[in-house]
Amino acid sequence: MPELRKDPIVGRWVIIATDRAKRPLPIRAEIPSGEEGACPFCEGSESDTPQEILAYRDRNTHPNERGWRVRVVPNKYPALQIEGDLQKRGEGIYDKMNGIGAHEVIVECPFHETTMANLSEENIREVLWVYHDRLVDLKKDPRLVYGMVFKNVGAAAGASIEHTHSQLIVTPIVPINVWEEMLGSLEFFNYRGRCIYCDMVHQELSTEKRIILDTPNFVSFAPYASRFPFEMWVLPKNHSSHYENIQKNEVDELGTVLKTLLLKLETGLDAPAYNYIIHTSPFDTQLLPHYHWHMEIIPRLTRVAGFEWGTGFYINPVPPEQAAAFLREIRVDLDSRRH
Amino acid sequence: MPELRKDPIVGRWVIIATDRAKRPLPIRAEIPSGEEGACPFCEGSESDTPQEILAYRDRNTHPNERGWRVRVVPNKYPALQIEGDLQKRGEGIYDKMNGIGAHEVIVECPFHETTMANLSEENIREVLWVYHDRLVDLKKDPRLVYGMVFKNVGAAAGASIEHTHSQLIVTPIVPINVWEEMLGSLEFFNYRGRCIYCDMVHQELSTEKRIILDTPNFVSFAPYASRFPFEMWVLPKNHSSHYENIQKNEVDELGTVLKTLLLKLETGLDAPAYNYIIHTSPFDTQLLPHYHWHMEIIPRLTRVAGFEWGTGFYINPVPPEQAAAFLREIRVDLDSRRH
Repeated sequence: MPELRKDPIVGRWVIIATDRAKRPLPIRAEIPSGEEGACPFCEGSESDTPQEILAYRDRNTHPNERGWRVRVVPNKYPALQIEGDLQKRGEGIYDKMNGIGAHEVIVECPFHETTMANLSEENIREVLWVYHDRLVDLKKDPRLVYGMVFKNVGAAAGASIEHTHSQLIVTPIVPINVWEEMLGSLEFFNYRGRCIYCDMVHQELSTEKRIILDTPNFVSFAPYASRFPFEMWVLPKNHSSHYENIQKNEVDELGTVLKTLLLKLETGLDAPAYNYIIHTSPFDTQLLPHYHWHMEIIPRLTRVAGFEWGTGFYINPVPPEQAAAFLREIRVDLDSRRH
Repeated sequence: MPELRKDPIVGRWVIIATDRAKRPLPIRAEIPSGEEGACPFCEGSESDTPQEILAYRDRNTHPNERGWRVRVVPNKYPALQIEGDLQKRGEGIYDKMNGIGAHEVIVECPFHETTMANLSEENIREVLWVYHDRLVDLKKDPRLVYGMVFKNVGAAAGASIEHTHSQLIVTPIVPINVWEEMLGSLEFFNYRGRCIYCDMVHQELSTEKRIILDTPNFVSFAPYASRFPFEMWVLPKNHSSHYENIQKNEVDELGTVLKTLLLKLETGLDAPAYNYIIHTSPFDTQLLPHYHWHMEIIPRLTRVAGFEWGTGFYINPVPPEQAAAFLREIRVDLDSRRH
């Protein structure tokens, strides 16, 4: 079983794989294909993946058979394992726990499509609902504390299977960057009585210069202190701390927003590798007045030098105002590329 | 002039390049070669670089001419600029300052050598002294707060010029990861009255299983919560908060340690791309009882998925105990590859 270890200085938890038989490359959707060259995520290859956890299916179809629209399966080589009791131990000055958690793959469509931007808005909405459903289900498990939904697209972003998919890693601890967002926003709230993300939404909407897309319930902008060229954040305009509390009208709109942003990215920047991550509140929290869920979309256009993730010190060669102006101007046709 | 912007939630500062004429790739030693294919760092090409800041030279040789052994020049396209007054401003909820700082390149030898491990121990010692000299000089500037010495080797680690070199970026703020180390170690000190790094040195030396190299004044080990496969840390055994307070006998020894570790890396792991970073105390601090300077060496063997630097949540497929055992066993000949 993998092990979670804590850096005693900064408090960052790391997953240490202890089973040497596993592949040396982390964070992939590592479901081997049945036949050479066959895609294990395509309809008809259901038996090439572990048993499905959830699928949105057409009537009268059965689990692990054809007829699904979006399908969730366990990662064949998971970073964390769902079986067992959570055990926490010390080792001198160090702290560790066993690697209890979940690692799931969300296969976004049954046909062999390599980019989410080409999915229909309705298809993307179903993917967003699947994220919701899995978070709601997994947060019932008292051993688990945090659910991270993310997507790796392109080899430079860590993807190994091209069929469009997302992943969900659920951990018994809160990842350090989320923890720092929690603390930073709480500090602001304690001092000013407001949510800093709400303030940010307000300031971005008034100054306009970093706005990429403005719709009734969401705002997409290039953040003021963007770490990466063409980094994009998407925030709900109304305060909401937990992604899984999203409403139907919001999912409908977010599907369109996400498709639009990804089409802008592909059209304007020549379909770069990218990641997106949903930042949301830990499972064991009630509604939080200080935290605001959001989505970060990060194109992988420049190579990140090791010292950048070593020091947390980023150099961004494209000012977010220019990135936003560029992305704002790109016209996309939501219907033209629909399946 | 570049701009430093602060993320209002987590307090991370980012350098935003505002001059669009510059190249879009950050953090390189971007000194263009004079002739097609000629190396601007080789002896005889001194005029292809900006005027030197410091060089260790043979007697009776002159600045910007032949006869140097280690040479420091400004980066031609610096991430930060040394001229001007530091100006701090607000922009609504955001904070920024102008990009005052320094960005220097340390050319480690006059001949065209692409790997530091092939330099003589004496040559490496001189490089380590140059780091010392530059930090001592730059910390006199009251506008500057932190000096980061780092090295990118190989394209995967962000290097663009193969002639062996290091870089120094000096900033008017403390990088967030260093800041977190400062806070984390201070918290431990306040609670237990000891330096956590000293405790770590003690525990690693007693358990031995993560030790890679143990010499009179330094210990090299694979850290307990290694983020990356074959990550190596080097710490002085005696408490010392500032790299620039290093003593002659320590530099002599560290030169040998560094050459040994880099040879182990090259021999055992097929000369991977790697980074090293010196973590030291901010300029404006006195001797600190809670912080301990150290060096982190990070081979770039696996691709870091975007979500890893997005969340601070790392998955390491090689347990540090196995990495240390592997590296410990690799025999290297310090003399065989000396120039």
